[in-house]
Amino acid sequence: MLVVQKYGGSSVADAERIRSVAERVARTSKEAQVAVVVSAMGKTTDNLIALARQITDNPSDREMDKLLATGEQASSALMTMALHALGVSAVSLTGGQAGIITENVARKARIARIDVTRMKKELEAGNVLVIAGFQGVTEGSSWADITTLGRGGSDTTAVAVAKALKADRCEIYTDVEGVYTADPRIVPEARKLDTISYEEMLEMAGQGAKVMHSRAVELGELYDIEILVAHSQKEVPGTVIKHEDEAMEIRNPVRGIAHDLKTNRITIASVPDQPGIAACIFQALADKNISVDIIVQNVSQSGVTDLSFTVADDDLNTAVATVQEVAQQIGAGGISTDQNVAKVSIVGTGIRSHPGYAARMFTALADANINIISITTSEIRITCLIERSKLEEAVRVLHKTFELEKA
Amino acid sequence: MLVVQKYGGSSVADAERIRSVAERVARTSKEAQVAVVVSAMGKTTDNLIALARQITDNPSDREMDKLLATGEQASSALMTMALHALGVSAVSLTGGQAGIITENVARKARIARIDVTRMKKELEAGNVLVIAGFQGVTEGSSWADITTLGRGGSDTTAVAVAKALKADRCEIYTDVEGVYTADPRIVPEARKLDTISYEEMLEMAGQGAKVMHSRAVELGELYDIEILVAHSQKEVPGTVIKHEDEAMEIRNPVRGIAHDLKTNRITIASVPDQPGIAACIFQALADKNISVDIIVQNVSQSGVTDLSFTVADDDLNTAVATVQEVAQQIGAGGISTDQNVAKVSIVGTGIRSHPGYAARMFTALADANINIISITTSEIRITCLIERSKLEEAVRVLHKTFELEKA
Repeated sequence: MLVVQKYGGSSVADAERIRSVAERVARTSKEAQVAVVVSAMGKTTDNLIALARQITDNPSDREMDKLLATGEQASSALMTMALHALGVSAVSLTGGQAGIITENVARKARIARIDVTRMKKELEAGNVLVIAGFQGVTEGSSWADITTLGRGGSDTTAVAVAKALKADRCEIYTDVEGVYTADPRIVPEARKLDTISYEEMLEMAGQGAKVMHSRAVELGELYDIEILVAHSQKEVPGTVIKHEDEAMEIRNPVRGIAHDLKTNRITIASVPDQPGIAACIFQALADKNISVDIIVQNVSQSGVTDLSFTVADDDLNTAVATVQEVAQQIGAGGISTDQNVAKVSIVGTGIRSHPGYAARMFTALADANINIISITTSEIRITCLIERSKLEEAVRVLHKTFELEKA
Repeated sequence: MLVVQKYGGSSVADAERIRSVAERVARTSKEAQVAVVVSAMGKTTDNLIALARQITDNPSDREMDKLLATGEQASSALMTMALHALGVSAVSLTGGQAGIITENVARKARIARIDVTRMKKELEAGNVLVIAGFQGVTEGSSWADITTLGRGGSDTTAVAVAKALKADRCEIYTDVEGVYTADPRIVPEARKLDTISYEEMLEMAGQGAKVMHSRAVELGELYDIEILVAHSQKEVPGTVIKHEDEAMEIRNPVRGIAHDLKTNRITIASVPDQPGIAACIFQALADKNISVDIIVQNVSQSGVTDLSFTVADDDLNTAVATVQEVAQQIGAGGISTDQNVAKVSIVGTGIRSHPGYAARMFTALADANINIISITTSEIRITCLIERSKLEEAVRVLHKTFELEKA
């Protein structure tokens, strides 16, 4: 049996936690071959970025990759030392040494292929692999350049290594116990889910349940790899992400309530109501790599309309600047922003085949006197934009309405 | 013209110093091709070693190499960013990317060869090279393992790169202004030397003038590379290390006074005076990689003799343990140690052809009422072991006796 285990930054934040994680790996290594993927220790990546910013406002992507890759290289060496101290044969591998070949794009390289030769050789020699997550190298000789995989990179490394080595299990250890029906800090009755589908996980994560990066979930779905998400320091069952199981038809169609505080509404007033105008605005935002959500266009009055949409906190300033430029070009009116909003969603693959859930959601919010500003839906999710101060109440109301506290 | 410049840890200890060093590199790059070699920032290496010690008392050499190599990888990326910010085309290279191939020995690998292909390509493309010092990779594909070169590793990288690239100059920038006739903190009249020979530099450095690592000096001598040692933040002339110049015959045969506080005397009492016994003791120390200095054996009395020698502070505990074991095997008496000693030396290539310098040295010390415990000499150095409390006075007396304040 071969198991891939990934440990995030908070799980390897100091020497003590590294030793604690090593004990878990050591136990697993008694009954299986193990490939461990580690993130950089705690705040290392943030600290390195801050250091680069002290040098220059505009660091080159290639040099940032090289700088940031040191974080995982260091933690992989330290984890390997901790395994040795427990008498476990282990060897650390940089992304390059693990054969992770990426496209030649800095900061957010995608994995092109994995040459498993060295990993297999080390496994056959009886070693636990300790792979530096988040990084790879470009195709080529030993001169290959170091690349990083961008946000969620270590999760992506773990899933890709699991696929390449045909692992039996892929386990993502983090500082939460799994995926819940809602944030337990808001809803004390929230229940940890035993399983969740890839699609549901993507909707939950995208809406703010930051358990695992969506890119790695997508890769897991693509490769059909079951992923266990669990707590790195606690011996409790986590949540398995996998394809919908057969019990789907009889279970609660709603799996969880997701929420997102880090959203902002931008409104463009008096947009000329002509074909191609909306495309013009959203293409400009897409060019800046800004994801847009909950787009609402009012009914046209006297040839103009108001257009609203939401963007994440990180993208707000760039989005406003971009939209201002476009608004001028197309002869629209002023731009206004509202940061006092939040998103609440019900998520579940069952929703698509069960009509009436949207109505139940809106009624429940209305009964609680929570005003819905706008609505967006996917096949397996219904999201309402509401006033930020009402968010916690909305999550609790919906959790109760859809009886998620019941197994 | 091609210049190699090496900057030590204190010269790149923070963002401000990195930017300051980058300005010097930028100026040089206007009139020459430049290959920069950098150490890890400030105390980074010490901190990484401390972190490893928190994990295990006995970290594996391979993993330590991988851990420590991150220090220079990070500083090379940051230095490259600083150069970019000044509008200088530059590219960072890890030891492996610079083509520095070492033997497969961790922690203190020697450089086997340098494949200059990529360095040449980058220079031809108009880039300043920023090479991570202290590190290389083993022979092989991109799976090559990362090695470190041990103490003085970045100096060694600089000299080896200068040789491989056939550089016109090799400059070692550090936090001292050059090599002095004596430590200026002890002798205010001490003079900075314009030039010094490799042999003299080795004797000065070996005796405690920690300007540049002896291994790199030896490599410079072997390859006949002139090395400038100078201050990284001050625009003042340094000292050039090179083969003896023609003026040798008429200059002062004594070039400087070296001293070493970090020495300890170990005495083994009642050693059987038989052939092979001394070899037995010193082989055991050599096996532990302990350098021994100033060996004194008393005249034999009734078949036994006392044997004294000195070792560096770092080696004291291991040396005592080793010697105790051997003493038991050979039937010698007890071991005593004296940490209250220090070494003072006169150094100069002229000494070998000018008799009488030893006598002048001993007389000067005697006149100053400084007792000589024991003596050792090389062709270009005479060293006296004296009481530690008398060291500063001895350095001053000898500096005056040999008129080193005069140019």
